[in-house]
Parts: sequence; structure tokens; C-alpha cells
Amino acid sequence: MVLGAAESPVLSFDVGGTDIKAGLVDARGTVLGMRRVPTPLDPARPGEAVLDRLAELKTELAAEFPEVPAKAAGIIVPGIVDSVAGVGVYSANLGWRNFPFTAEAEKRLGIPVAFDHDVRSAAAVEHTFGGSKEFNDVVVMVVGTGIAAAVFSGGKAVTAGGFAGELGHAQVPDPDAGPGSTGSTILEAVGSAGAIAKRYYRASGNRVNGARGVLLRAGDGDELAARIWADAVDALAFTICQCVNIMGTEAVVIGGGLAEAGDQLLEPLRTKVDGILDFQRRPQLIRAELGQDAGLLGAALNARALLGAAQ
Amino acid sequence: MVLGAAESPVLSFDVGGTDIKAGLVDARGTVLGMRRVPTPLDPARPGEAVLDRLAELKTELAAEFPEVPAKAAGIIVPGIVDSVAGVGVYSANLGWRNFPFTAEAEKRLGIPVAFDHDVRSAAAVEHTFGGSKEFNDVVVMVVGTGIAAAVFSGGKAVTAGGFAGELGHAQVPDPDAGPGSTGSTILEAVGSAGAIAKRYYRASGNRVNGARGVLLRAGDGDELAARIWADAVDALAFTICQCVNIMGTEAVVIGGGLAEAGDQLLEPLRTKVDGILDFQRRPQLIRAELGQDAGLLGAALNARALLGAAQ
Repeated sequence: MVLGAAESPVLSFDVGGTDIKAGLVDARGTVLGMRRVPTPLDPARPGEAVLDRLAELKTELAAEFPEVPAKAAGIIVPGIVDSVAGVGVYSANLGWRNFPFTAEAEKRLGIPVAFDHDVRSAAAVEHTFGGSKEFNDVVVMVVGTGIAAAVFSGGKAVTAGGFAGELGHAQVPDPDAGPGSTGSTILEAVGSAGAIAKRYYRASGNRVNGARGVLLRAGDGDELAARIWADAVDALAFTICQCVNIMGTEAVVIGGGLAEAGDQLLEPLRTKVDGILDFQRRPQLIRAELGQDAGLLGAALNARALLGAAQ
Repeated sequence: MVLGAAESPVLSFDVGGTDIKAGLVDARGTVLGMRRVPTPLDPARPGEAVLDRLAELKTELAAEFPEVPAKAAGIIVPGIVDSVAGVGVYSANLGWRNFPFTAEAEKRLGIPVAFDHDVRSAAAVEHTFGGSKEFNDVVVMVVGTGIAAAVFSGGKAVTAGGFAGELGHAQVPDPDAGPGSTGSTILEAVGSAGAIAKRYYRASGNRVNGARGVLLRAGDGDELAARIWADAVDALAFTICQCVNIMGTEAVVIGGGLAEAGDQLLEPLRTKVDGILDFQRRPQLIRAELGQDAGLLGAALNARALLGAAQ
């Protein structure tokens, strides 16, 4: 079989806070030469350092798979991303501000580059192929160390120049608020897997194996663990209800590490959401089907769209 | 001048909780024969009673302006409205559930009917002609006795089957929460003009002239009045920041009775929003330019769109 441009693999890079995942992704979504390397952190030139590393990865993959030269690349990053302008507007963890990713990447890679947001790209794959595909008004939340999200309205991604979907930074009631405080904190500080482990350690002095460890202890009758898990559920439910009231969200897809708790997360979350809402339509709460490679697949889909448009 | 169908007036009905406003609206937005009558409330047949009254109003207006027969009508109502299906899904104040407004209205009026939500229709006029027209990601809030809103994303109205824009029912921290309570209430219970007057009366026993009276007292050094005004600002700021974090909202247009406070509302609101947000883009807070007739104009625009589509 001769591979046409539409079938030939594209380069795909999922740039995370600690690792870069890279590979060649063919039209069927098969990843060739998948590798994971540490993300270079250079405070003086954070965007350039990442792109230099991607250029090396391109050379490695080209040497490994000389028979299928990639005609386009997809790069996804966290933070605030203006995919239309091709700019990494801001990343707290990786350090860039207004870095022209598309232009700088095309210089180094020598092929067209589709630059976009990591969670929005992964969520688009989930929303196209996963459990929420029948819904038009959807929020996809990735709840791990932090919380990121992609928002869809009327079937389309809500981007707002990269500023939409900052659910992790939305205000929620602060379960640790003392009398007289403002009483609010951000969702990520209570509802993330990272926050669950951290709050349990802070309150008990006991280190556990992340949010999963806190859930296990709660199951064994540890009241502190149960309260901290319930606080996380409350905070997630609070933010889900904001989405419902503001945008009429029909379905919320939950992925990331915390979603591994399955119904131990989703069941209390449904009860809590139902208790907060009044006349409003109840959103479906759905566990993500996305695997670890959703980012790579999303970046590849973005790159493939470039090839499609060029033909 | 001979009026073509595009120029001829359309019938316009703005059905509110207490009054119906009706008139013929020409292509320039001039309202002819404007009248205001009480909204009939019939618990047994709430939708039918309203439509029977609209048919009488049509007959009156036709008798008054026989030279310009209306070729279409626009009807707007509060509550949850599915404008695509032509159904009034729910109105707490007016009492209907899943009433087929478009079909029943066309039976009674004998002309094509555009049925839609009151605030979304008025907000579309504001967003098309007012201070937010340069922005794509906009929330228009009408803050009066209650709080209603219309949400725009990427320049398009977010409808979600009529369930979007329920900002008045979004959760906010409850300033009256005692220790151990859940600590939340809904925006409308703290941030509306109605709530400001009600909370002041409840705490002081003094009746004042609505939210305006509370603001006047705050200016005269009444600390309770100042605190209740500040609570409303806090609650509005909280919800505005939810919109910013979820949808990347660029501009918030505030109309309704409370907006008459002008900078006495907008200035503290800007300060509060700025204090809550971190790396996020600050939304422009803009006072609505809409007058009392925005609903009638919005309903007329909806009706005119029907005529345009039919030609």
C-alpha cells in the first residue's frame, strides 16, 4: 500500500510540565516510535528550549522511520494558548509569556505546525469519539495534580483567545475558611487529586499514596480522609453547577487521575450536583474513555487538519 | 413611500411577569401603538391565557393601524425557552411547562411567529448595537428584581436548548451563612436589586426606596446599608469571575434597575473582579445602553428575521 499525504504519519508532540511525549501518528491513530523525555526548563528562553528539544526528537524519529517522512507536526502545550495566533500566551509551570510557537516551531522543524492547547486537543478527541459525542454542550475536565478543562457550546469548542476552560482557577467555597475570611478558594486547591493528597497530609501528618490513598483510608473508616474526599466532591459539584447555570452544560466528562476512582467519585458527585440544582437540567456525568495518549492523538488530529486544508 | 414587506411593521409582544408590552415596530425600530396591559395569570391554562390576550391586542392594533398589516409577530417570554422547538419549557412566575408557544400563537394570530427568550432577545439588540459590539465573548446581565442573562461565545448566542444564562441561579457565597452551614446561596438572593432592598429591610426593619434607597443610605454613612451594597457587589463579582474562568468572557454588559447606579456599581465591581482574578484577562464591565423598549425591539428583530427568510 502506498501512503498518500492524508495517510502518512504526522509528528505529534505533547509538551507537559514534566515530560514531552513524542511520536509519529498515522491516520488510524497508531503511534510509531512513541517516546517520553523530560521537558527542558530554561527560565531565560523557556519556549526556545522546548522547541530545540522537539527538533532533536524530529531528527531521531526521521532516522528511525526514514520511509514515512512527516509532512506536518502537531504541538500541544498547557497554559493559556491562542491557537489562532499560534501563541503560547502564558504558562505558569513552563514559564513563557506570549511566545510565538507556530512561527518558531516551523523555523526549526521545516514543516507546517498546528499549535494548540493540550487539554482542548485531547478533549476534542474525547468529544469526537467518546461518551459525550451525542451532546452539544459539554465540559471535559482533566482532574489530576491540577485541573484543566475544555468547554464546548453548541458542538463547538469555546476558546475565547485561549482564556476559556480555566475551571481549576474558578472560585469555590473554601472548606478551611475561618470565620471572617472571604470564604473562597480555587477549585484546584480542593478538588484536584493533588489537593486531596496535600490536604490529608497537612491535616493528619500521614503521607498516603495520593488521592487514591485518601480514598482507601476513607473506605477503612478514616473520618478525616472521608471529609477531605467529600470536600473535593463538593468543590467539583460546585463548579459543575456553575457550568450548568452559565452555559446549560448537558454533559461533563471527567478524566485524569481522579477519574480512576470511577463510581466512588461519580456517584457522590451526581448526588451533590442534583442537590445544588433546582429547576435546571441535570448534566450527565461521564468518565472519560481517553487513555494516556489522548494528547498525542489530539495533536496529530490538529496536524492532519493542516494537511487536509493544504491539499 | 410605499412600504415593502421588509419595511412594514411587525407585531411585537414582550410578555413579562406582570405586564405585556405590545406594539407595531417598523424597520427603523420605531414603535407604533405601544401599549402595556397586565399579564393574565390562569394557573389552569397559563400559556393559552397569555396568547388569547395577544390575539386581542393584535385585533386592537390592526384596527388602529389598518394601513400597515403586520406580516409576522415576535413574542418573547421569561423562563426557560427552547426557541428552536418553539416551546416555553418552564416559567416559575407564569406557570407553564413545555407549552408549544409558536404553534399555538400561529393558530391564534394567523401570521408567522418568532418565539424566543426575553432577555436573550433584548441582549441580542444590545450586543448588536451597544457598547459590547466589538467583543465576541460577552455576558449581558439584567439585574433588577431578579437576575437574567444572555451569554455569547465566539459572537454567537449560547442557548443550550434554553438552559444557558441562568446566572441568577448560580451559586455564590452566602453572606448570611452561619458557622457549619454549606455557606452558599444563589446570586439572585444577594446581588439583585430586589435582594438588596429585602436584605436591608430584614436586617434594619426600615423600608427604603429599593436598592437605590440602600445606596443613598450607604452614602450617608449607614454601615448596614454599605455592607449590604458591598455584599451585592461581591456576589456579582463572584459570578462574573465564574464566567471569565469558564468561558473566557471579555465583556460583561450590565442592565436593569441596578445598573442605574452607574459607576457606584461598576467601580467597586471592577475592583472586586480584579482582586479575584489572577493571570486571567480582565473583562470590560459596561453599562447597558438598552432602554425599556429593548425587549420589544428584540422581539421585532426576531419577527423581521422570519420575513427576511420567507422572501
